[in-house]
Amino acid sequence: MRILVLGGDGYLGWPSALHLSARGHDVGIADNFVRRAYDLELGVESLVPIASPTERIRVWRELTDREIALFHGDLTDAAFTHRMVEEFRPDAVVHFAEQRSAPYSMIDQHHAVYTQHNNVVGTLNLLYAIADINPDIHLVKLGTMGEYGTPNIDIEEGWIDITHKGRTDRVLYPKRPGSFYHLSKVHDSHNIEFACRIWGLRATDLNQGVVYGQETDETSLDTRLATRFDYDAVFGTVLNRMAIQAVLGEPLTVYGQGGQVRGFINLVDTVECIRISCENPADQGEFRVFNQFTEQMSVRDIAETVCRVYPGRCRVEMIDNPRVEAEDHYYRAAHTGLLELGLMPHLLSDTLLGSMFGIIDRHRDRVNLDALLPEVRWRKTAANLVSGR
Amino acid sequence: MRILVLGGDGYLGWPSALHLSARGHDVGIADNFVRRAYDLELGVESLVPIASPTERIRVWRELTDREIALFHGDLTDAAFTHRMVEEFRPDAVVHFAEQRSAPYSMIDQHHAVYTQHNNVVGTLNLLYAIADINPDIHLVKLGTMGEYGTPNIDIEEGWIDITHKGRTDRVLYPKRPGSFYHLSKVHDSHNIEFACRIWGLRATDLNQGVVYGQETDETSLDTRLATRFDYDAVFGTVLNRMAIQAVLGEPLTVYGQGGQVRGFINLVDTVECIRISCENPADQGEFRVFNQFTEQMSVRDIAETVCRVYPGRCRVEMIDNPRVEAEDHYYRAAHTGLLELGLMPHLLSDTLLGSMFGIIDRHRDRVNLDALLPEVRWRKTAANLVSGR
Repeated sequence: MRILVLGGDGYLGWPSALHLSARGHDVGIADNFVRRAYDLELGVESLVPIASPTERIRVWRELTDREIALFHGDLTDAAFTHRMVEEFRPDAVVHFAEQRSAPYSMIDQHHAVYTQHNNVVGTLNLLYAIADINPDIHLVKLGTMGEYGTPNIDIEEGWIDITHKGRTDRVLYPKRPGSFYHLSKVHDSHNIEFACRIWGLRATDLNQGVVYGQETDETSLDTRLATRFDYDAVFGTVLNRMAIQAVLGEPLTVYGQGGQVRGFINLVDTVECIRISCENPADQGEFRVFNQFTEQMSVRDIAETVCRVYPGRCRVEMIDNPRVEAEDHYYRAAHTGLLELGLMPHLLSDTLLGSMFGIIDRHRDRVNLDALLPEVRWRKTAANLVSGR
Repeated sequence: MRILVLGGDGYLGWPSALHLSARGHDVGIADNFVRRAYDLELGVESLVPIASPTERIRVWRELTDREIALFHGDLTDAAFTHRMVEEFRPDAVVHFAEQRSAPYSMIDQHHAVYTQHNNVVGTLNLLYAIADINPDIHLVKLGTMGEYGTPNIDIEEGWIDITHKGRTDRVLYPKRPGSFYHLSKVHDSHNIEFACRIWGLRATDLNQGVVYGQETDETSLDTRLATRFDYDAVFGTVLNRMAIQAVLGEPLTVYGQGGQVRGFINLVDTVECIRISCENPADQGEFRVFNQFTEQMSVRDIAETVCRVYPGRCRVEMIDNPRVEAEDHYYRAAHTGLLELGLMPHLLSDTLLGSMFGIIDRHRDRVNLDALLPEVRWRKTAANLVSGR
């Protein structure tokens, strides 16, 4: 298949592109490289050094004899998006190209508006490009489990059958997300479902859990193929950040009581989910939703697991929760769609964490300790507006 | 109370501002006058001539000795929005300031993106301004019944209690809107509910039905206080447009089979709903939703009612439905919240339609017949993108 990976320079976009290429697909990636610019803005960088986009692609070509096309541009530029889809003629488009950090969206008004504008308009332009050029293109869109919030009922995969006053309907699962970033993904999902309905597009919305891990079979072939590994409080996901805190001898910071339960997924499973979704497209007009995670755990459990496995001293510290979220709640989310299509999960295991500790230890001198602690607070608005971060 | 009416130059914003002023509130209006610019873009105009914003305000002052402050600016300009709220110090903000036509949002890619950007970013800026300056300000936000779509279960007011697999939760009512415009309002509602949750804002979301009518007690005091009256296929609402078709001896155009059921509300009830909502604010942190309509009817029923009442020859014509929507569906929507707060509905009656026919007849020479028929088609994309409308 011809597969275009949007956001193909990012933490997940790059390993996904390599995995699809390794499996024989013709892959193109598109990126505006703004993720690297966020590093400059925040004064942080990937723990693991990453090569430039062109070098990554060149090394992959040298090692595998496989080409990856590179499109440099921004999805909010309608003409660029249209031209790219027209030129590459994909069978599937995998869409990672959004601002993907909840804390980043909550820095202040500017960052909230930027996040929603960037994500919603980029996706709208993509929907129009697909509808105009070839409505048969399968859109594989990255969403997040955070869109659901923490309802007191079971979380289903995107849709739910409701019986109300004796009548029944299948409706979009009602969502109550926890940041302006998560909200942007909810907006996207509504827009995409509508596009499927009026234009007969085929779409798969992947509500992904918290991803952890740094290596895949493909990225580990050469250090210059490494994907980024974020540990800072804005872009670092919780398990990765805690593993780094353990290696550095820093306390593992748990927000509030740590009872927040989330879905988690290993990076190697993420890239498989993307491959499986592409190779098993949604039907024409179908808005298909998968919950893309393999196990659910509380943040406190994650901290305790990391501590238990780490071969050294380790302690957990509860800090004030900078977010507004329930810390003690019911959580049970379905995740059978991808398993039924053949996903073989790699669950959180000692082995994996062991290899993560090694990677971290090799790069420990690159860590900026100040970046580990949360500065962005959900309840704060005024000071952010006036003074920036 | 001090009440700021955003979009105070529009079809509903202007009569609402007058009604609030007449009832003793200190009113300010804000507008970027873009609604008047849409007329120029589309080559249409209000059937009833409307005075300039400054003349309207001057006439109102002369007649009633009451001042209305005018802010000229755009909500997507964060600094303008912030400064306006800081300067006026409202107790309530009534927010009509959005692009409000479904067909306009479906003209092409540019109009879809414009609508979502304008509506979502404007509301985000407003939420930040309120949270920064005074979280006690009550936000009264105009939504639409069209956000719900046509579910096979009863439509409740914004929230619904769901029992699923033996557990129960109160969740946002799941929505499935029918245009990029309606979607923008769904996005707004999600953003506002979040702002109530994290900042303790108080908000009332008014999901309004299709408004009909042209006069209120206040606008009828002087022709220079008249509000706009749109009959074109892009901005004209169905009942107003059909009344005009009857007077002109044109067929009343019903889209498809006309079985689409919608909620309707008289203009004089709309301005009362706004007053009632302002005078009975939501609680701190509450995201309160009212369905703002007084009766539900099918489009075919509306056409037949207009024909029956019109004192002349009249015929109904079914035309191809330009939209993608169910034409035969269950529809039963709750609308008790505003009644409980004291709304006394003016139902669709012969008297009212009679007075509308008179208004229309006085201005019949201003009609552009070409503007009556729908040109915007939901399923079309490519031609729109390339050639514009």
